[in-house]
Amino acid sequence: MTQNYKDTLTTSNELLTREPLPASTKIYLKGEIHPEIRVPVREIALSNDTTLGVYDTSGPFTDPSIEIDVGQGIPAIRKGWIEAREDVEAYKGRIMEPEDNGYATDEQLDFVTAGAKGLVRTPLKAKAGKNVTQLHYARAGIITPEMEFVAIRENQNLAMSQAYLQDEEREARLKGDNRGANLPEKITPEFVRKEIAEGRAVLPVNINHPEVEPMIIGRNFLVKVNANIGNSATTSSIAEEVEKMVWSTRWGGDTVMDLSTGKNIHTTRDWILRNSPVPIGTVPIYQALEKVNGIAEDLTWEVFRDTLIEQAEQGVDYFTIHAGLLLHHVPMTTKRVTGIVSRGGSIMAKWMIAHHKENFLNVHFEEICEIMKAYDITFSLGDGLRPGSVADANDEAQFAELTELGRLTKIAWEHDVQTLIEGPGHVPMHMIQENMDKQLEVCHEAPFYTLGPLTTDIAPGYDHITSGIGAAMIGWFGCAMLCYVTPKEHLGLPDKEDVKEGLITYKLAAHAADIAKGHPGARARDDAMSLARFEFRWVDQFNIGLDPEKARAYHDDTMPMEAAKVAHFCSMCGPKFCSMKISQEVRDYTDTLEIQQGMDEMSQKFQEMGSEVYIEADKIATKG
Amino acid sequence: MTQNYKDTLTTSNELLTREPLPASTKIYLKGEIHPEIRVPVREIALSNDTTLGVYDTSGPFTDPSIEIDVGQGIPAIRKGWIEAREDVEAYKGRIMEPEDNGYATDEQLDFVTAGAKGLVRTPLKAKAGKNVTQLHYARAGIITPEMEFVAIRENQNLAMSQAYLQDEEREARLKGDNRGANLPEKITPEFVRKEIAEGRAVLPVNINHPEVEPMIIGRNFLVKVNANIGNSATTSSIAEEVEKMVWSTRWGGDTVMDLSTGKNIHTTRDWILRNSPVPIGTVPIYQALEKVNGIAEDLTWEVFRDTLIEQAEQGVDYFTIHAGLLLHHVPMTTKRVTGIVSRGGSIMAKWMIAHHKENFLNVHFEEICEIMKAYDITFSLGDGLRPGSVADANDEAQFAELTELGRLTKIAWEHDVQTLIEGPGHVPMHMIQENMDKQLEVCHEAPFYTLGPLTTDIAPGYDHITSGIGAAMIGWFGCAMLCYVTPKEHLGLPDKEDVKEGLITYKLAAHAADIAKGHPGARARDDAMSLARFEFRWVDQFNIGLDPEKARAYHDDTMPMEAAKVAHFCSMCGPKFCSMKISQEVRDYTDTLEIQQGMDEMSQKFQEMGSEVYIEADKIATKG
Repeated sequence: MTQNYKDTLTTSNELLTREPLPASTKIYLKGEIHPEIRVPVREIALSNDTTLGVYDTSGPFTDPSIEIDVGQGIPAIRKGWIEAREDVEAYKGRIMEPEDNGYATDEQLDFVTAGAKGLVRTPLKAKAGKNVTQLHYARAGIITPEMEFVAIRENQNLAMSQAYLQDEEREARLKGDNRGANLPEKITPEFVRKEIAEGRAVLPVNINHPEVEPMIIGRNFLVKVNANIGNSATTSSIAEEVEKMVWSTRWGGDTVMDLSTGKNIHTTRDWILRNSPVPIGTVPIYQALEKVNGIAEDLTWEVFRDTLIEQAEQGVDYFTIHAGLLLHHVPMTTKRVTGIVSRGGSIMAKWMIAHHKENFLNVHFEEICEIMKAYDITFSLGDGLRPGSVADANDEAQFAELTELGRLTKIAWEHDVQTLIEGPGHVPMHMIQENMDKQLEVCHEAPFYTLGPLTTDIAPGYDHITSGIGAAMIGWFGCAMLCYVTPKEHLGLPDKEDVKEGLITYKLAAHAADIAKGHPGARARDDAMSLARFEFRWVDQFNIGLDPEKARAYHDDTMPMEAAKVAHFCSMCGPKFCSMKISQEVRDYTDTLEIQQGMDEMSQKFQEMGSEVYIEADKIATKG
Repeated sequence: MTQNYKDTLTTSNELLTREPLPASTKIYLKGEIHPEIRVPVREIALSNDTTLGVYDTSGPFTDPSIEIDVGQGIPAIRKGWIEAREDVEAYKGRIMEPEDNGYATDEQLDFVTAGAKGLVRTPLKAKAGKNVTQLHYARAGIITPEMEFVAIRENQNLAMSQAYLQDEEREARLKGDNRGANLPEKITPEFVRKEIAEGRAVLPVNINHPEVEPMIIGRNFLVKVNANIGNSATTSSIAEEVEKMVWSTRWGGDTVMDLSTGKNIHTTRDWILRNSPVPIGTVPIYQALEKVNGIAEDLTWEVFRDTLIEQAEQGVDYFTIHAGLLLHHVPMTTKRVTGIVSRGGSIMAKWMIAHHKENFLNVHFEEICEIMKAYDITFSLGDGLRPGSVADANDEAQFAELTELGRLTKIAWEHDVQTLIEGPGHVPMHMIQENMDKQLEVCHEAPFYTLGPLTTDIAPGYDHITSGIGAAMIGWFGCAMLCYVTPKEHLGLPDKEDVKEGLITYKLAAHAADIAKGHPGARARDDAMSLARFEFRWVDQFNIGLDPEKARAYHDDTMPMEAAKVAHFCSMCGPKFCSMKISQEVRDYTDTLEIQQGMDEMSQKFQEMGSEVYIEADKIATKG
């Protein structure tokens, strides 16, 4: 057993991807209200002796100065902040039951739990009569360290942009179309507080997840991206699960949902949470269903409630709960092309029709709120009736459930529980705006969190792209977080490369949305890239991009020589045709003052002549 | 030499990808006005004994009943149609000059020209006083075989859809947002004629390219996709160039642009044209520049004119000509972040500033029109000042040139020359609509043909996706053809897999646009896919998709067993969790009449109760 325990830890630590991205150093920005906070920024060193700072979700894993042992977990940066509020207490938590780990055999269990023994913590909960949610603090006018942290974090673009944005005409021309969002020039801690207080943003941080680097989800902030990971009995070990999380945050995952099922899921969750610098979400009904051996009809409120407590004590930051799907919604789905495609939705539908009873998640909603607020867990109200085909988009069933989610949002807010709303799914481009408008209206501006949406059904193998199109658009229209889709969607389980491909696709979609919304400074990274392009700084182009490895590898495919990395042309045109090179010559030419004057005069002359020059051209032409 | 000649042909024929796509058979639809026309359709056989017909761009290469020898070319299906009009005459064409093949040495030349000797045709041109353009015929009220061909071709979706679209509610809900387009329920030959006559659509068919299967480009038709191919001194042989074209049409390329430079480009073009079932476009200035050894300043109208004639006689269907870039536009680019990024634009800019003279393509525009109309070559008026970064989008330079392209369009139309307008480039999402609106306005609804646009600059290696987002959107807004971008954009030369990845991305973007516009029946293929999903017909899902090979391979990654192809679940959820399976159970359940009545009553009851049910739930919750 000892051997197994050590093996597990060694393997896990070795599996972790820990090297920083190319030319990158992690720096930390300090707080003013809370001087103890240290906000991570990835600084990319450029070949022209400047640096570019970018938002960094990868946590301590890309900081070589921090030693990490996955068997002990990463530093609990929020521990002091939580304790200082004096509104939580440690208590003897729930005892782990065999069903928590999918009825794993003792042998299976001992192996993994031994590896995780350094990861078990005494849980905290709110003291009696206290509410420990960020929404509660925000409404009370308190700016928490978490709030200042995200304010500094969200402003990184602005700092970056000040180095690049110089031209008034350009800024006026590119001014975003915010579609009703309210994007201040600078994000202040007070702005963060106000957005949370008004329910327009959430800051998901379970008091039992002190390792998390705070982040915010709301339409008036940068668009965020979630990555789903999950085990599979045959393809993953626990160590691989932790690396999947590390890998996801490396490529920009702002949150990670752990959708594991089967054996050892309780212990896997300990491993993931104690090592995760980003908020972790789950769908508790999946584990509850495991506990009743996969028979939906056998689910009970008690089993579900127990699962919520179990995961709350471990530190899960947000729960997807399909409480909006009601019994009378079920018949609305029978005429659909693809029925109910959400796992949670179909489980609850099956339970409801088997018992002829209302959804117990809805019936017990206020009790769920009581649990959520004791740990500051954020609701992600699930869309059990999201469309699974473009044919089913925006139908009666989908919007009936959405309306119910809006009603539940108000109840959650009465308890000061932070709330996200989940959305589709499959939606043709022209119906995306209606989705967003409806959600803002019936859910009172609670942040929207969508899967895609996929804009067509005909491209299995490319659904990261069919959905990336919809994701970029809905992000622009006001969606706060985008749940990624990998190339394996509808076909199989994503491997590491698929996870990366899905994440990069969604990061670029989120960024395209930030530019379109006019998020202050969002364009700075684009400008840095474009300047590097114009100046043939190839290595900088690789390093500024979302995927430096792939960019370099693609360049190497055609021009592998190191000399090509400083060449003033590329393989597309070659040295003779290079338009960027010619363009620079044009600029050099016009830069010369005398010639500049000549050009100005000529420009003036041509403008004065108006169409006359063409009259002459016409004469020539008719002769030809 | 004989040996080389035979080797070349054998290699070329062996290199061709000729097998049909999985489960696919090519059928041909007959004309009514012109009974001799045979319009290809790819019919996919499904496992439920139905078939699905899809638009087929792959020509005879996927028809095993047609023997093909690339040294002789594919059947000249339009030959009889052209001759029947009695307005063209054969003539002794231009003599091939050494500079046509990039001054290839005799040895280099003999080798390839010997291989191509079966491909050289006597050129045709319009008889004196005749105009042979489809625009001319359309204005004269003539419905040509080409026009009826495209009418039948465009209606395939409609035929398909009639098998699937049954539900009134669904059709009303999903009705497209056509953004000012005019999409009739059924495309008639007369509608095609009218669209061409009014300049809103082009049908690019050089009279010297009788092998082409007619297709149409216009906002009131299916959105089309172009693939660029091009040689590279080191990486391609002529045989590989032909296969690149075959490969591009296999994956849905509606037209192909041959952007080859260097040696043997004249002969390569013969090979491509004689074997191409899709219209071929070129940028003649590239070859003209080769003829003057790559020195832009040495270009002359005479060299350019000679190149136009050369390519016209070979059968090129559309020419990109950068005639809208004027001398007084050049200074507008000096404040840009990335200056001039179009190759053609930068060549002309360099020529203009070197000579202090107006763009000779603009000065000689009417002479160019005279050449175009003698062969029915379509203008693709180039956007030499397209933005190369989001920072430069929609700027003064770009729109000044666009306005000039609109003026030139009117001149081209006076000559009955068909005209496309090229567009950007790099444009943030919120500025795409303005691009489209401006183009429609200043270019009098001439079809727009854009490269992407890329919606962010920060993802080299993923620019097929950054641009696929913009392409889908502008396609919806009214863009008629999308020029693909491959993952290698900005980094290197695309290989076959990159070409395929770029094409599939653009086909799905174009399709998403067709759905959003509400093209009649566009959604039928999506519905066929969704039904296959709901019924667990895995093999049908692979075969209906845009890339059957990848879909099957991804499914195999997780579930390689053949039995999994008929399993009523998939690897994502496994048998217990399968939402589609549960969903079918829900349907089966509600399908039972008795239970259906029970459900209806319950649904009714819940609706009547309104929020009362929650009052009771609230009571329980406050107790909990």
